[in-house]
Amino acid sequence: MTSPFGLHRVVEPAGVLPQQARRLDPTPRCGADEVVVDVERLNLDAASFRQLREEHGDGIKAAVLDIVAERGKMQNPVTGSGGMLLGTVREVGPDSPLNLKPGDRIATLVSLTLTPLRITDGLADWDGATEQVPCAGTAVLFGRSIAAVLPADLPDELALSMLDVCGAPALTDRVVRRKNAGSVLVLGGGGKSGSLSLAAARRAGATRLVALVPTEAEARRVRASGLADEVVVADARNPVAVLEAVGKPADVTVVCVDVPGCEHGAILATADGGTVVFFSMATSFSAAALGAEGLAADVEMLVGNGYVPGHAEFALDLLRAEPAVRALFDHRQTAQA
Amino acid sequence: MTSPFGLHRVVEPAGVLPQQARRLDPTPRCGADEVVVDVERLNLDAASFRQLREEHGDGIKAAVLDIVAERGKMQNPVTGSGGMLLGTVREVGPDSPLNLKPGDRIATLVSLTLTPLRITDGLADWDGATEQVPCAGTAVLFGRSIAAVLPADLPDELALSMLDVCGAPALTDRVVRRKNAGSVLVLGGGGKSGSLSLAAARRAGATRLVALVPTEAEARRVRASGLADEVVVADARNPVAVLEAVGKPADVTVVCVDVPGCEHGAILATADGGTVVFFSMATSFSAAALGAEGLAADVEMLVGNGYVPGHAEFALDLLRAEPAVRALFDHRQTAQA
Repeated sequence: MTSPFGLHRVVEPAGVLPQQARRLDPTPRCGADEVVVDVERLNLDAASFRQLREEHGDGIKAAVLDIVAERGKMQNPVTGSGGMLLGTVREVGPDSPLNLKPGDRIATLVSLTLTPLRITDGLADWDGATEQVPCAGTAVLFGRSIAAVLPADLPDELALSMLDVCGAPALTDRVVRRKNAGSVLVLGGGGKSGSLSLAAARRAGATRLVALVPTEAEARRVRASGLADEVVVADARNPVAVLEAVGKPADVTVVCVDVPGCEHGAILATADGGTVVFFSMATSFSAAALGAEGLAADVEMLVGNGYVPGHAEFALDLLRAEPAVRALFDHRQTAQA
Repeated sequence: MTSPFGLHRVVEPAGVLPQQARRLDPTPRCGADEVVVDVERLNLDAASFRQLREEHGDGIKAAVLDIVAERGKMQNPVTGSGGMLLGTVREVGPDSPLNLKPGDRIATLVSLTLTPLRITDGLADWDGATEQVPCAGTAVLFGRSIAAVLPADLPDELALSMLDVCGAPALTDRVVRRKNAGSVLVLGGGGKSGSLSLAAARRAGATRLVALVPTEAEARRVRASGLADEVVVADARNPVAVLEAVGKPADVTVVCVDVPGCEHGAILATADGGTVVFFSMATSFSAAALGAEGLAADVEMLVGNGYVPGHAEFALDLLRAEPAVRALFDHRQTAQA
């Protein structure tokens, strides 16, 4: 009897959900409501990749292989985060509700931190220099997992890179509409989730869009894109510098900077009664909670939920319809390659 | 020139806010917009106290003294959290906006993690067994700090204990009203923030109140209090057990359990379209974000902001008006003493 949440794949400790488990069973045997996938590529989440590079340097490949061999999944033990994967459906259980068929090329939209994974090629084709990891192996999806069939009109790497962050524009859209927000600040507005969030905020009716980026070079690209009305340069980890750069606080602030320590700047730059949406996996819960209290800031703070119904279609539509978003994505792909 | 955020008290690293600082200057010399307080008592936050007890056992007193001597503030290096304090105003700077005067007995409503603190009695009167710490020394408040003058009609320990968690009922009230929520689940409904949150949810119009507690003994007390319509017993760290105990998922779930690992249970027990409010400082940002994604759960997740305008008065009013809340608080004081 399989569980839609994957409880039957948990090896230890018993009785926890797959994301909390130390170890999963990655055997590629398809349960009644499961789907087995032949993996082609992993996309490590940015915070995890950065941490692994900093800790292991050129030993990053061995580090990833060790984690997956030991845990049966790719979950960074420091950041707690994972990423997603791209592959082809090998087998579909008779009771799977995911609407997939063998041969479909898909991207998983649930985290690698709860996806049973086996690597069979020793990551031979990965140079360790980017978060996109060519990989042969198998993965398993559960009844409540989410996967998107890859669009035929976009390059794989672009689609995968975009789908990894597709929760951000969908939630930004929802928050800006609910609050009828006029001004929106995006910390890390030149990145993937940042540029999509800017485009989503514009569509949702925001009239003052501010992008904060770390360098003048990135500022020039974002200015050229037209995605923001104002582009400012500051270190997002320096609350005082953020406040000075932004000037008038925003109604909604979206945090897309994958480095620790951006909580207080986001809070300071948000107007009383406003909302901060934290999408960075480097966010510290206690820094956010205590920061707002310590600054006597009456702001609503949302944990960026990576799942919003329809998020993949929404983000794909933005990417297709907004050449500026596509251009920033293409630039990042080129810069990384 | 003093900063309303206390930037002038940061010793290292330069340019960060006091909460992020490794070390503050606790010298009790009153700046133009500052207030100097003679400390009587610290109230360590529950997650911090638990962690210190587990790591240091009977050495907890030396551990607290070391932290304060080294950092110039009481910030637990593991949990990142602090607590609050009670004392008497010694001196008020000419430009202080806090509306305090020398001799006022106050409780600070900003965290100890950003409050310059000096301890002068070696904590001689503390036995290390409770989170309420008798203490002689001095503290400093900034222009944007928050402090409440202690009410004359309540015992100090009761008021301090209540003010420490007064953000929870105020934010619960706001969320329940905004969502017009019918059902509210409180994980840890028998505790301080939990019982206040139940009372606040009732006032805000919720019609099905469920309290989840860890033991039958606590369940009996909460049942007798009448604060909840249903009281269930389960380990909040076990998502599957939480879901089974609660049955029908709630519109709003409030997490008041000060142990790690309660994120997934809270998410599973919340209806699609519902809201989870995390008040526990033991909450993990990545566990919450990835958990919701991994469970394909369309829930809004709020970081419990300890500051909501009027929160102290709101919580004091609940405590005075609801004998059941007062009874649970009194029981906890007695049980701890």
